[in-house]
Amino acid sequence: MDKVKSYIEENKQRFLDELFELIRIPSISSLSEHKEDMVRAAEYYKMRLLEAGADKAEVMPAKGNPVVYGEKIIDPSLPTVLVYAHYDVMPVDPIDLWESPPFEPEIRDGKIYARGADDDKGQGYMHVKAFEALVKTGNLTANVKFMLEGEEEIGSVSLGEFCEQHKEMLKADVILVSDTGMIASDIPSITTGLRGLAYWQVEVTGPNRDLHSGLFGGAVANPINVLSKMIASMTDEDNRITIPGFYDDVLDVSPEERALLNAAPFDEEEYKKAIDVEELSGEKGYTTIERTGIRPSFDVCGIWGGYTGEGAKTVLPSKAYAKISARLVPNQDHEKIAKLFEEYFVSIAPRSVKVKVESLHGGQGYVCPIDLPAYRAAEKAYETVYGKRPVPTRSGGSIPIISTFESILGIKSILMGFGLESDAIHSPNENYPLDHFYKGIETITLFYKYFSK
Amino acid sequence: MDKVKSYIEENKQRFLDELFELIRIPSISSLSEHKEDMVRAAEYYKMRLLEAGADKAEVMPAKGNPVVYGEKIIDPSLPTVLVYAHYDVMPVDPIDLWESPPFEPEIRDGKIYARGADDDKGQGYMHVKAFEALVKTGNLTANVKFMLEGEEEIGSVSLGEFCEQHKEMLKADVILVSDTGMIASDIPSITTGLRGLAYWQVEVTGPNRDLHSGLFGGAVANPINVLSKMIASMTDEDNRITIPGFYDDVLDVSPEERALLNAAPFDEEEYKKAIDVEELSGEKGYTTIERTGIRPSFDVCGIWGGYTGEGAKTVLPSKAYAKISARLVPNQDHEKIAKLFEEYFVSIAPRSVKVKVESLHGGQGYVCPIDLPAYRAAEKAYETVYGKRPVPTRSGGSIPIISTFESILGIKSILMGFGLESDAIHSPNENYPLDHFYKGIETITLFYKYFSK
Repeated sequence: MDKVKSYIEENKQRFLDELFELIRIPSISSLSEHKEDMVRAAEYYKMRLLEAGADKAEVMPAKGNPVVYGEKIIDPSLPTVLVYAHYDVMPVDPIDLWESPPFEPEIRDGKIYARGADDDKGQGYMHVKAFEALVKTGNLTANVKFMLEGEEEIGSVSLGEFCEQHKEMLKADVILVSDTGMIASDIPSITTGLRGLAYWQVEVTGPNRDLHSGLFGGAVANPINVLSKMIASMTDEDNRITIPGFYDDVLDVSPEERALLNAAPFDEEEYKKAIDVEELSGEKGYTTIERTGIRPSFDVCGIWGGYTGEGAKTVLPSKAYAKISARLVPNQDHEKIAKLFEEYFVSIAPRSVKVKVESLHGGQGYVCPIDLPAYRAAEKAYETVYGKRPVPTRSGGSIPIISTFESILGIKSILMGFGLESDAIHSPNENYPLDHFYKGIETITLFYKYFSK
Repeated sequence: MDKVKSYIEENKQRFLDELFELIRIPSISSLSEHKEDMVRAAEYYKMRLLEAGADKAEVMPAKGNPVVYGEKIIDPSLPTVLVYAHYDVMPVDPIDLWESPPFEPEIRDGKIYARGADDDKGQGYMHVKAFEALVKTGNLTANVKFMLEGEEEIGSVSLGEFCEQHKEMLKADVILVSDTGMIASDIPSITTGLRGLAYWQVEVTGPNRDLHSGLFGGAVANPINVLSKMIASMTDEDNRITIPGFYDDVLDVSPEERALLNAAPFDEEEYKKAIDVEELSGEKGYTTIERTGIRPSFDVCGIWGGYTGEGAKTVLPSKAYAKISARLVPNQDHEKIAKLFEEYFVSIAPRSVKVKVESLHGGQGYVCPIDLPAYRAAEKAYETVYGKRPVPTRSGGSIPIISTFESILGIKSILMGFGLESDAIHSPNENYPLDHFYKGIETITLFYKYFSK
């Protein structure tokens, strides 16, 4: 495997240049004006897969954005790894908070700054380069398949159907994914649990038009006042979610497992300092690690209504809107939660307003057992590169498609993430440390080595 | 006075054409890009005053937008009427709800549709034309002064100082204002009370940047969730405002006066139908007329924060904002209320967020006694034109400058309004019935006749 390491070292700059070219394509899946960029990003991945040594690679149509599929089958009797990544990225607003343009990658202090630098172009592209290093040095010891989608940031809306339609093509022993994080640059970890997600847009309508707040104020329900009350009433003073039935399917985590989780290194003062808050806030009776790892959460992701321009306009607006999300834990069904929310939201609306609730997307949580052979192989790969056995962690994030893979394809996923909390994914100034990119490539090559033994 | 009536009739079309030209100037005072339009509107009024017969008219500098001053002193021993109006208008968003462009006036079903059609170009320009009709027919029996400002919709921020500096020039026996409404086209009314106003912008900051709602959600305070709770806690289940001390200076209105107020024609079903709500909502224990006339109110005029674009972006935002207003009743001091709000808002903020409160503007309430000679003159003028004695009403709206006039110039104002609730002032599709424009001009000419007797 020394040849693999040397190959990576010798081709470092080219690997980075190729990643930069991928990042420069503004493939924002949630904005329809970027439709063509989605295809460009997919085509780009396809070409690089072929160059890296894939037997075949193609941009396949799906209900929404296309899926890139590539494979190299060296021996059907050997184990098969299915690599999953996504080529779409999040929107970039608020754009004025970026220190350099989001789609012009720039290296500062040893980090790549750009939208997608980590999530998921930086992490996803490592797999193409690890594959190339194994192929070109004659060290590939497993069959490899790639499935790269363009809708992860909008809930992987078409990929479930794509999997249904291509079950045979996608057959594999394990799915390998780098779309999560590790605890710190010197503390490797592997995510063994993911939260599920439910996401709604709500609309509250008061009067049929914006009214003069002087002439009508005090006599007609104001939809912003009402929406604020409705949102406020969905969590109690202990920060527990008040939607009836919301916690019914949440599994209690044993005191032993909670102790293990809380043994992970965590510095609350550092954590608060990094995001500049004086006090943390969450469900009573749980630690920060537990609040994001094993407990559901309730966040308003966006709110708008009335006059939001310069100066003071007095108005009693007609409408108010919010985008609301809940992170769910394994065993909570996102469709059931979506219904519970909708019923509750409608039930608490006063008769003075009309409400609409739209479920925008959702996904189930996921748990990976740590005695899985593929997990053990990943563990050993990290240990070899980082000199430390990786910590199994539960992430607060959601990759809804991971549980879909399990239910449709019947394959477990290994979440070999190399991101850091400070990478600011989904935020302005997203970044990814250069050495994570290179160490990630090396770790992935070792995974293949240990997994195929 | 028949000559006056004929003059109005003969010049109808020209009066309207002139008003349309005024409306076409987009003089939105709250948007700085319209600075030049403010001057254009002021110059336009000046020219029309000179043509109408003013001895002099000029666009005078003020701290903010200029003030148009004009006068015709026919005999210093005669009473003097000071006409006040404003040439600025409200913003036009949401622009897509307008059926015709806001600054291209159009007549549909006997109504002028445009921003400013009623508030206050339509109503203000009636005074210029009433003045012209009296001058040109030799029927002017009082001295007339005009003061037209360009900042009414942003709280008349410079006019107080202007009045202080020009007390002598502005001396008058009464101020005449058409910037309010009447009950219905066939039910004339005169506004005898106005609510005061306090207006704030608040900012709630959680983490120092937008965070991934999966990785941090449940452990870090979300500023939208927090702002919603803060807004929600500012009114109780009886829709009373919970800010400590808020009601301290609210005067109890006697049962007799309340009975009189409630005797005004009011059809709750019609009112609900007009704004398409199933149920009204307001302070417990008061009728709709009382809720808008003699009780304060609390309205969020605008709210924004987080992701508000297309689709579903999961984010735990850094900031949330709201524009919040309270309508005040006479005897409540807007500066005191502004302080009470600020103190309370800061006091209820959890330590997990930082808050900022900015007071954007305010004004005191106003009451006009109905035994004032000028009130009697106005009453008689309406009765002559409409065949019915006008009802004295308390409006929920605010014209902060009216109480400023009283305190600085020591002059009472008569609020001869001709607008209708259906005029949609401050809203898309603002309109003003043509016959209100013409009858208004006639009524104003009669006011001069009765007032100078």
